[in-house]
Amino acid sequence: MLTVHGDIRSGNCLKVKWLLEWLRRDYRWVEVDIMNGGSRGPEFLAINPAGQVPTLVLEDGRPLGQSNAILMYLGEGTELVPTDAYNRARMAEWLFWEQYSHEPYVAVARFQRVYQGRAQAEVEPRLMQRGDAALDRLEGALEGRAWLVGEAMTLADIALVAYTRMAADGGFDLQGRPHVRRWIAGVEAALGLEPYV
Amino acid sequence: MLTVHGDIRSGNCLKVKWLLEWLRRDYRWVEVDIMNGGSRGPEFLAINPAGQVPTLVLEDGRPLGQSNAILMYLGEGTELVPTDAYNRARMAEWLFWEQYSHEPYVAVARFQRVYQGRAQAEVEPRLMQRGDAALDRLEGALEGRAWLVGEAMTLADIALVAYTRMAADGGFDLQGRPHVRRWIAGVEAALGLEPYV
Repeated sequence: MLTVHGDIRSGNCLKVKWLLEWLRRDYRWVEVDIMNGGSRGPEFLAINPAGQVPTLVLEDGRPLGQSNAILMYLGEGTELVPTDAYNRARMAEWLFWEQYSHEPYVAVARFQRVYQGRAQAEVEPRLMQRGDAALDRLEGALEGRAWLVGEAMTLADIALVAYTRMAADGGFDLQGRPHVRRWIAGVEAALGLEPYV
Repeated sequence: MLTVHGDIRSGNCLKVKWLLEWLRRDYRWVEVDIMNGGSRGPEFLAINPAGQVPTLVLEDGRPLGQSNAILMYLGEGTELVPTDAYNRARMAEWLFWEQYSHEPYVAVARFQRVYQGRAQAEVEPRLMQRGDAALDRLEGALEGRAWLVGEAMTLADIALVAYTRMAADGGFDLQGRPHVRRWIAGVEAALGLEPYV
């Protein structure tokens, strides 16, 4: 059986959980407490030397890290990955953009508030500024569109929705971004999730 | 013909250049001066709303951003992408790790020194600390191995070598990382590049 080592409060880990459930795959979840060194101890580092969750362990024991690489591995050959080469590439573009230009700001602002208990005024200003820029780009991309790539949900929607739906936890405004809110509701419905906000 | 919008000093852009040359693809290079707003003006944003280089423009005018998504698009079906599903996934894991845990430190420290002209003491300490951790992980992963994944060069080697070979520009030590140095020389030779250091 597949094993996921993850922190259930982490959007990066939830992505993998949602995909496994959408695919109706059996899996075992091993909760890792990242705030208490759970991903930095020798046992965990033997599985993933990057010290990061989520980490997927295959039936034969081989590990795989990086949430979006895990999504691509599990999603390959399903309707969540476009067959058209350009649309596949656009999906990958969104996946890399999520990890480079969205998660380091939108997720980290939330981390500072929710995990570290900082007041809003103590969240680093550059996180808010760059997170807002990322959410603005999403709002523009989703105008008149139900999904980020093509005409159906892809891994890009699953990856981007993870921290976007929780953005208000980090102090970001979703009320003023109606296309993002409509898209979040659509992805949540497709994944069978309760609305987050 | 393919068009690459890029900054020739950027490792992210060089990755794409090297791959196109390795594949012997014809392409046109449009130099973008990122230090003077070249990637933030309305003309560029019409091509890539993320305002990032490199951006590839296909023969039919469709754009594609994110260096590692471009590598995956151009490399698909070549010997630089493993056919085995797990090795493909490991390659993707390295590509995501590069953009999340390596480039934001190793490349940004170099950016602060080379582009912004900061003295070494003015480079943000967290960049040096996290960049060193990334280089340490690479050193461990390359012990006894010629390539990051499997038994041949993949897109992961091309992506990771881009800023790793220039790490000393940012004040990082490569002398104490012999496996990384050997691997850099191997990738440079395979790509037909002059040694950087």
